[in-house]
Amino acid sequence: MTDHAVARDRIAFLRGLRNVRRFRPDPIPRPVVDDLLEVARWSGSARNIQPWEFVVVRDREMLRALAAAEGYAGHLADAPLGIVLVMHGDPAQATQETWDEGRLAERIMLAADAHGVGASVGWFRPRGAETVKALLGIPPGRTVRTALSLGYPDPAADGPKPGQGRKPIAELVHEERYGEGTGG
Amino acid sequence: MTDHAVARDRIAFLRGLRNVRRFRPDPIPRPVVDDLLEVARWSGSARNIQPWEFVVVRDREMLRALAAAEGYAGHLADAPLGIVLVMHGDPAQATQETWDEGRLAERIMLAADAHGVGASVGWFRPRGAETVKALLGIPPGRTVRTALSLGYPDPAADGPKPGQGRKPIAELVHEERYGEGTGG
Repeated sequence: MTDHAVARDRIAFLRGLRNVRRFRPDPIPRPVVDDLLEVARWSGSARNIQPWEFVVVRDREMLRALAAAEGYAGHLADAPLGIVLVMHGDPAQATQETWDEGRLAERIMLAADAHGVGASVGWFRPRGAETVKALLGIPPGRTVRTALSLGYPDPAADGPKPGQGRKPIAELVHEERYGEGTGG
Repeated sequence: MTDHAVARDRIAFLRGLRNVRRFRPDPIPRPVVDDLLEVARWSGSARNIQPWEFVVVRDREMLRALAAAEGYAGHLADAPLGIVLVMHGDPAQATQETWDEGRLAERIMLAADAHGVGASVGWFRPRGAETVKALLGIPPGRTVRTALSLGYPDPAADGPKPGQGRKPIAELVHEERYGEGTGG
């Protein structure tokens, strides 16, 4: 491909990421999981602290138990793979860790999409996070808030959903100063 | 390219994103900026709230003024373009907005990289954020914390830096339970 074609492919790839909540039961091959973890490992973070660890879960009973923790991670129950994000939990860096965790999650979901694997964000409420720590043996001082469900999309279940559109550019972009619309 | 080659290209692309702090003075063409904003617009967010707006700044005097705001955004002074991320500032959603902002920023930096444009994260301290709001006319209730500096990398200035490596996989990944190493 030409440089231009590569750029176009990459932009279309980034633009096209969508939430996938229903998965086929097929396992995700190890080399694909390794790619996800390698992309995760190379995530940028403030002062390159890399304030994260990952628990990779395939065990069905464990995934069901995690899915039942208080919060919004029910889709883990039927996913072939879950990745629980474990953040360092430095109280002085709470905002920065939250921000870096968003960066990290986005990369993992994109790396999955590069292999045709769909992903969904699961979010634990604080009490659910305590449940998850107990289930997985995560030290109490760590921050657990997010798990990603991963699997090949179930074509029978997923498809364009209502309410998944986005606001138009004109509502989002200001040129030079807030309140000035886009000239584009 | 085959599907496999496309997947490999996308993984290498995701893995390869690096911080760029020194830029050539060349402006970023409008179609490239439009691609960045389009990728930003399609970012995922909790309940698809899309709690963001973007202020796109090219004016050199304004970029210098933003760079001088209290925080860590000095690299804006010499960047041809800055994008200030303006978050809704809903107090009940502060953590979620911070997390979604990280997702958003990662996508914009990747979209820039797809076009050979480098990016750096600038971070304002709370008092610096007040300065930025006053400079750009952003309503007080919004959250401003981040600006991205964007430009073509200056090959004379940038290059592999010490201290930009990453922790090995074995320090990051746990299989099935925390404390269990990777089998890979």
